[in-house]
Amino acid sequence: MKNNWKEKLYVIIFEADTPAGKFFDIALLYAILLSILAVMLESVNEIQRDYGFFLRIVEWIFTAVFTIEYIIRILASPKKRGYVFSFFGIIDLLAIIPTYLAFFLVGGQVLVVIRSLRLLRVFRILKLNRYLGAASVISSALVASRAKILVFLFAVLNLVVIMGTIMYLIEADQNSGFTSIPRSIYWAIVTLTTVGYGDITPSTFLGQFVASIIMIMGYAIIAVPTGIVTSELAKENRLRNTECKNCGSNDHLNKALYCQNCGEKL
Amino acid sequence: MKNNWKEKLYVIIFEADTPAGKFFDIALLYAILLSILAVMLESVNEIQRDYGFFLRIVEWIFTAVFTIEYIIRILASPKKRGYVFSFFGIIDLLAIIPTYLAFFLVGGQVLVVIRSLRLLRVFRILKLNRYLGAASVISSALVASRAKILVFLFAVLNLVVIMGTIMYLIEADQNSGFTSIPRSIYWAIVTLTTVGYGDITPSTFLGQFVASIIMIMGYAIIAVPTGIVTSELAKENRLRNTECKNCGSNDHLNKALYCQNCGEKL
Amino acid sequence: MKNNWKEKLYVIIFEADTPAGKFFDIALLYAILLSILAVMLESVNEIQRDYGFFLRIVEWIFTAVFTIEYIIRILASPKKRGYVFSFFGIIDLLAIIPTYLAFFLVGGQVLVVIRSLRLLRVFRILKLNRYLGAASVISSALVASRAKILVFLFAVLNLVVIMGTIMYLIEADQNSGFTSIPRSIYWAIVTLTTVGYGDITPSTFLGQFVASIIMIMGYAIIAVPTGIVTSELAKENRLRNTECKNCGSNDHLNKALYCQNCGEKL
Amino acid sequence: MKNNWKEKLYVIIFEADTPAGKFFDIALLYAILLSILAVMLESVNEIQRDYGFFLRIVEWIFTAVFTIEYIIRILASPKKRGYVFSFFGIIDLLAIIPTYLAFFLVGGQVLVVIRSLRLLRVFRILKLNRYLGAASVISSALVASRAKILVFLFAVLNLVVIMGTIMYLIEADQNSGFTSIPRSIYWAIVTLTTVGYGDITPSTFLGQFVASIIMIMGYAIIAVPTGIVTSELAKENRLRNTECKNCGSNDHLNKALYCQNCGEKL
Repeated sequence: MKNNWKEKLYVIIFEADTPAGKFFDIALLYAILLSILAVMLESVNEIQRDYGFFLRIVEWIFTAVFTIEYIIRILASPKKRGYVFSFFGIIDLLAIIPTYLAFFLVGGQVLVVIRSLRLLRVFRILKLNRYLGAASVISSALVASRAKILVFLFAVLNLVVIMGTIMYLIEADQNSGFTSIPRSIYWAIVTLTTVGYGDITPSTFLGQFVASIIMIMGYAIIAVPTGIVTSELAKENRLRNTECKNCGSNDHLNKALYCQNCGEKL
Repeated sequence: MKNNWKEKLYVIIFEADTPAGKFFDIALLYAILLSILAVMLESVNEIQRDYGFFLRIVEWIFTAVFTIEYIIRILASPKKRGYVFSFFGIIDLLAIIPTYLAFFLVGGQVLVVIRSLRLLRVFRILKLNRYLGAASVISSALVASRAKILVFLFAVLNLVVIMGTIMYLIEADQNSGFTSIPRSIYWAIVTLTTVGYGDITPSTFLGQFVASIIMIMGYAIIAVPTGIVTSELAKENRLRNTECKNCGSNDHLNKALYCQNCGEKL
Repeated sequence: MKNNWKEKLYVIIFEADTPAGKFFDIALLYAILLSILAVMLESVNEIQRDYGFFLRIVEWIFTAVFTIEYIIRILASPKKRGYVFSFFGIIDLLAIIPTYLAFFLVGGQVLVVIRSLRLLRVFRILKLNRYLGAASVISSALVASRAKILVFLFAVLNLVVIMGTIMYLIEADQNSGFTSIPRSIYWAIVTLTTVGYGDITPSTFLGQFVASIIMIMGYAIIAVPTGIVTSELAKENRLRNTECKNCGSNDHLNKALYCQNCGEKL
Repeated sequence: MKNNWKEKLYVIIFEADTPAGKFFDIALLYAILLSILAVMLESVNEIQRDYGFFLRIVEWIFTAVFTIEYIIRILASPKKRGYVFSFFGIIDLLAIIPTYLAFFLVGGQVLVVIRSLRLLRVFRILKLNRYLGAASVISSALVASRAKILVFLFAVLNLVVIMGTIMYLIEADQNSGFTSIPRSIYWAIVTLTTVGYGDITPSTFLGQFVASIIMIMGYAIIAVPTGIVTSELAKENRLRNTECKNCGSNDHLNKALYCQNCGEKL
């Protein structure tokens, strides 16, 4: 009897095929969005002054609800350990901790925005398979280009460290904001990535010349990560995942008739 | 007799094959551009002071003309309902409402810039088929990558919410502009998209360090939407899979008439 | 005899196969660069004060030299009209006019920077065929994507006009720089292209929200021109220019053995 | 005997297959990072004031260690000349010079950040072959697109020179920062690359109009380097042209062992 009750709860909380399960997920989605909104509004001074107490209560209610939900999830899971240490289990826990943390660390409660990651679960449960497919194509392209992207980042870091130091040498005495090497490196990153805040800008001719070189480099080398990801995504589009019955390999061109690994007919 | 007259009007207003129809469309094109220009100029203080009254009149004349045109379009349409609720029918209506709206909502007349969307119709009628083809390639590539782009946007929104909140925690007491979470999220968007206004900039070392990470991420992940759209557009440009009856090869250019492998007619 | 003299001049000035021709071109390259440098330096106040007279003379000498060169080019050309109205003939003329123009229009002499376009000729003559090949691949890819790029620009213009007007409605009373519709459209362009000067920035919550949407759109739709050009360039890489002896078509895949247009063996 | 000793040293310093060699490389990696950190921290005023003397000593110790290491590398090399004039030999030398240079050139010691390039060697020795493969794919794509990128840079330089001069003509009298042509060219680079500091911004309507054109051009032509690099990277990823002896098809994945068309062994 008790088991039956647990199973029903499991179906409602972890799945979305039944009307009750779907309702639960949609309610959860709104609860997450509202609780994030409450924390955001609380950080605005004028709203804090007028509605601070009300928002505090709202936040505590949502945290209480999510805490109860977390406990029920653990109780309803057949493999409790598996859930607690799963990706979503950890996020579910992280999403309730910040409010309690606020007892010890003033302001810590704003970290509840991590709840936004919980939306990932809701999307999964709402059977948005189309989007999960798209997400898996993107992430597998990013994983495949991992090595190239790390090499690119290493090159970029080296570049900003050396360029930032050169600019420090050129502009340090100019009162133009290049007060230390770390700050000059920060400027080099702002410039290379084409963000360009303008809080630190070169004032000497030589500084503007070097800055121009960094800008043109930044403008040109953005082509590298773009090229890496694009060619990986294009590859994903070209291969079909037909597993070969003979050798098990599964990277074949869309038009392949025979396995390229062992010659078996596909 | 009356029908004949209606048909003639229809040909002039909705088509562009006759000299009268072509003249009508070109006149309309200039009228739209001039009416938008009038509204824009009126918003400039110095011009408003000197020519405000004249521009007001110009605007009313154009609105009157477009209103009459709208009524004639309805009258000339064989299927009145079909026109009124079509994409262009709605835009034609929206393009005249703002001037009348100005009676109730001061300043509302500037919304007539929506008239620029009417140019779409003029282009269509002027038989710029080449451009319509290009537009349809672009929009079908965007539609095909819809799911991937939405996933990307969801990831970006999650990122700016969490990063903005972290920056709020770091910089809130620094008087550097991070006065609330929504404002910090606004800053995170300004930074991640590499816009970089510089109206809000981090002042602490830790803030600049986190900002650097956001910038480099923004610089790198722009590769993702680019890769998505590029690989879709490349697919559109690609080969068609017509199998050759003679040799079985199936990689032919879209326009191929003969097999490039064996010379067989496709 | 006279003809012989003209031919020799032609070979020196228009070609670069002889030692004299090569020397002439390299001398011309330096003369162009120096004359541009002189004009640039003259515009710097401190340099103008100390060396203004000297730089003026340098500029006049270069202009005299280029004027004489232009006259000789006309004299040495077998088809005078052909040269004068060719692309390079017009640039050669435009490159000397600004200095004379300065008699009538103060400051007009700075337009001699158009001389930099003359470098194109020098590069051509120096037989940098490799670079000309690259340039022609790029320009043919851009020409091929002309229609798509124009459609893209039309969409962008419509977007900034409408978004700029909406921002004008929202921020006009905020003293935040959105003083007229044209200025708001300028801001929308600055934002959408991710330039982000920060000279005009939204100050209301709603304004920052709309700005965020524009930024994310700008960040995402940069994928469109990139995708267009990339897929065209990729196509250029895939096709070989083998002209078919039978039908004259010349767009074949690299691996094609038979003409796809008429089935003739390539 | 002596030779044996030299060989052992060589294995430790230049290779990483033995435990001692691996330990040496990891120690070197930390030493490089720490010495760069010391120089960076020294440039921060507050830290310089409190810990300047200590950081100076740290820097000298690291320089002494790297000098000794450099001498040992020379001694241990079988071909001394080969090492000294190799890419890494030169970097090893450049990495110790700046500290000694500081005797003659105040502040010159900050150039030790060039030590970050030494990390390249450490990565090589740590057998991160995967990353070296990625790096070689990227650099060979960049080398292959060298000519196209140079043509692009030439076009961009011409554009910023001409556009900068035009803006100087328009804005010179406006007190808006366009004080000389070089400075206006600097502004044009800042704008075209979409960096947009905002330290110089146009104030006239005409200036903002021209600036808008430059921005949209910068936004669109970034597609060119991206397209160049992407199509080269895509080529690297692409199929090899191994013709199948049986069916003649020649579009096989790089790793294919059997023809995908007929199953014949390649």
